[in-house]
Amino acid sequence: MSEEDSEKTIGIVGAGLVGCLAALAFAKKGYDVTLFEYRPDPRTVDSSQRNLRSINLAVSSRGIRALQYVDPAMADRILEHVIPMKGRMIHDITGTKQESQVYGLNGESINSIDRSFLNNCLLDELDKSNVKVLFGHKLVKLDTSNTSRMTFIDAHNDAKTSTFDFIVGCDGAHSQFRYHLQKTMRMDYSQKYIDMQYLELYIPPSEDPDNKFSIDANHLHIWPRHNFMLIALANKDGSFTSTFFSPWSVIEDISSSEEFVEFFRRNFPDAVGLIGEDALSSAFKSNPRGSLMQVSCYPYSNGKGIILGDAAHSMVPFYGQGMNCGFEDVRILMELIDTNNGDIEEAFTQYSASRKKDLDAICKLALDNYYEMSSKVVDIGYLIKKKLDYSLGKIFKNKWLPLYTMISFRDDIPYAKAIEIEKRQNCILNNVGLGVLGTAAVYGLVKLGQFLNRRQ
Amino acid sequence: MSEEDSEKTIGIVGAGLVGCLAALAFAKKGYDVTLFEYRPDPRTVDSSQRNLRSINLAVSSRGIRALQYVDPAMADRILEHVIPMKGRMIHDITGTKQESQVYGLNGESINSIDRSFLNNCLLDELDKSNVKVLFGHKLVKLDTSNTSRMTFIDAHNDAKTSTFDFIVGCDGAHSQFRYHLQKTMRMDYSQKYIDMQYLELYIPPSEDPDNKFSIDANHLHIWPRHNFMLIALANKDGSFTSTFFSPWSVIEDISSSEEFVEFFRRNFPDAVGLIGEDALSSAFKSNPRGSLMQVSCYPYSNGKGIILGDAAHSMVPFYGQGMNCGFEDVRILMELIDTNNGDIEEAFTQYSASRKKDLDAICKLALDNYYEMSSKVVDIGYLIKKKLDYSLGKIFKNKWLPLYTMISFRDDIPYAKAIEIEKRQNCILNNVGLGVLGTAAVYGLVKLGQFLNRRQ
Repeated sequence: MSEEDSEKTIGIVGAGLVGCLAALAFAKKGYDVTLFEYRPDPRTVDSSQRNLRSINLAVSSRGIRALQYVDPAMADRILEHVIPMKGRMIHDITGTKQESQVYGLNGESINSIDRSFLNNCLLDELDKSNVKVLFGHKLVKLDTSNTSRMTFIDAHNDAKTSTFDFIVGCDGAHSQFRYHLQKTMRMDYSQKYIDMQYLELYIPPSEDPDNKFSIDANHLHIWPRHNFMLIALANKDGSFTSTFFSPWSVIEDISSSEEFVEFFRRNFPDAVGLIGEDALSSAFKSNPRGSLMQVSCYPYSNGKGIILGDAAHSMVPFYGQGMNCGFEDVRILMELIDTNNGDIEEAFTQYSASRKKDLDAICKLALDNYYEMSSKVVDIGYLIKKKLDYSLGKIFKNKWLPLYTMISFRDDIPYAKAIEIEKRQNCILNNVGLGVLGTAAVYGLVKLGQFLNRRQ
Repeated sequence: MSEEDSEKTIGIVGAGLVGCLAALAFAKKGYDVTLFEYRPDPRTVDSSQRNLRSINLAVSSRGIRALQYVDPAMADRILEHVIPMKGRMIHDITGTKQESQVYGLNGESINSIDRSFLNNCLLDELDKSNVKVLFGHKLVKLDTSNTSRMTFIDAHNDAKTSTFDFIVGCDGAHSQFRYHLQKTMRMDYSQKYIDMQYLELYIPPSEDPDNKFSIDANHLHIWPRHNFMLIALANKDGSFTSTFFSPWSVIEDISSSEEFVEFFRRNFPDAVGLIGEDALSSAFKSNPRGSLMQVSCYPYSNGKGIILGDAAHSMVPFYGQGMNCGFEDVRILMELIDTNNGDIEEAFTQYSASRKKDLDAICKLALDNYYEMSSKVVDIGYLIKKKLDYSLGKIFKNKWLPLYTMISFRDDIPYAKAIEIEKRQNCILNNVGLGVLGTAAVYGLVKLGQFLNRRQ
């Protein structure tokens, strides 16, 4: 990077996961970065005040690669806190049977980490960097007509305008940055609510001194019940963050916390023991019910400002890729800045053109995967096909890749490409299926012929 | 309406066409209505200051019915200013030939009217009503959690909060009301830009003392040139408001006003004479280039607040239904309030559920009609089919209805229903076509048989 480049100023809005990583990434390249966040510093806020809407994260290959791209030592520091999950653990409706379904062909894992813990880690990393982090700053205006200017209202209700060479919005699904950026350009935009709520629940650490985890820590636990489901992901302290997903009508039809506990006893009997009836009852009464929204837009940039992460492509959480994809956004943008020799405007433009198909692909996969998690995981046909898929993956190493492997463990395969490969493989799988059926049919006809011949 | 109902307060945002009609409609029912508008009173603004982005309107059956529903005498007062257009006038590329294509089966017309003139008429009607109209009020906040409260910043930069029983947003495609309403509910929303710009042009009145119109006033003039086109609609004073539509690349490839005039000489030779080269040149340099955006959302209401008109379903202008549809929104909502005996919350909810399919239908038709206006109107196959369609319409009165007739002249047929009927008719038309082909084929085979028989 030239002397001149390093003087360039970058303003980033949103100190969530993607905003923090973007700030670290730009700073690492020598840019002069300021990061603005609407909320107060989460590390100074009493943890009992947290919003009880988090769903634990699963860091996988794409997220790890992006962390390593920005700073390998930082990646190590963060990743030492994760809990590897090597598969799903399916809990049956009797509450007595659990079945493990591994994720990877070769024992690969996705990695459970608490969202706010990870966020705090990244903020700690920012403290060690040159990035100026300003909390309590609400974006109220944005202008990219000449230079890029953003106006914020601070905690004292004072308006302040700052000027940057380039600005980046990482302020989530309900992004204010995107809203203001849209006024400066022709951006297609859509938001679509999925008919589903989620409710955060909590499984406390076990009282067993030898094993603080009440259920296997190294699995993502699922209680699949077709149109609703419960999941649980482990935390380092032995607790699990659990989430109940259902269509709105299911939870709205439950009129009291007693009914809610009864609903759990009927559908997730073993989970009732883990969470506790009182905790269930209080969660029903007090915990907020989250809604799920998909956001899609295009283009992502007007050449001066760009949106990354959920602000550009909020997805439902069912493929565990939301954060991984947002981190990948940062890596891909940074690599484009490199290949364009620091020409950020050109990198922003190329990012929009090249990233769209992959973001559309993962958003669609995330939605489709709800059906897989909540229903198909217990379907015999699906299990046979999955087994065949995995067997072929084991036999034809790197020539045959299950979709889950490509999405979660192969950061070198773009999302859209993964879907393309999966389609081709599915075609073969179906032909194999037809071949088997055809062979069986021919065999049957031969046998019938022999039988008829014998009768003559 | 009961005594209690008449005390209900309604706050409406946006004093454009739909907002004014909605205010008049609620007031007519005895509600206490306040209408807020961001801009100053357009009647007090110097007309040279207008934004040069208007496309003339064509009032047709649905718009007229809504005006009459609200106040028949008002409808008469407004409609005396329109210029009926009984068909399209197609201008060929040589600039020497014009061809009329009538719209209706029985001489029905759509009616040209200037947007700002119509808006001012409606504002004059409001002056005679009990509606409080507040200009220079910018909506900055909206809350429907308990009562419906809206906060505005007025011209003196003072914030004022008003409370209403129900609130209505009619503030156009870039609606602030919708933006704030979205925060109170789960509203699916999409905006999509069409790759097309429009540029307003002006054909002055003729100098001929016997005829102030340079071209036929009773037609909608079209210069269809496939991927771009020019249109012109008459004004009462003898002038025409003309609009040039093209993909962005077409106008961006024109680098100077001289090139623009030359482009017009080549593609619209007769229009150059009508508009004037200097006026063309200055329009290219100074007039803003409008963009076209489609907006779709669902639901339209959270039970306390509702959006109508472009705020809910901004469409491209190619079916001349944007305002007609917005006016129809008002009539349909009012009728639902009637059938629900003044239960506005229930009417809002029913409106969302029942109106969606019709709004989706007309938005799609509007987009498809660009292709019809710019290209198909000069396609032989299309013209034959259209002729057949119209002949069948003439023969089987009310049993066979061309789509244009249903959309523009039959306000009793909902948009979605019109498309359904059109599909059925198209099926028959295609079968007739196949029948003709089939008969011809059979006839040919018989003749061939006879020929071969004769040879034997």
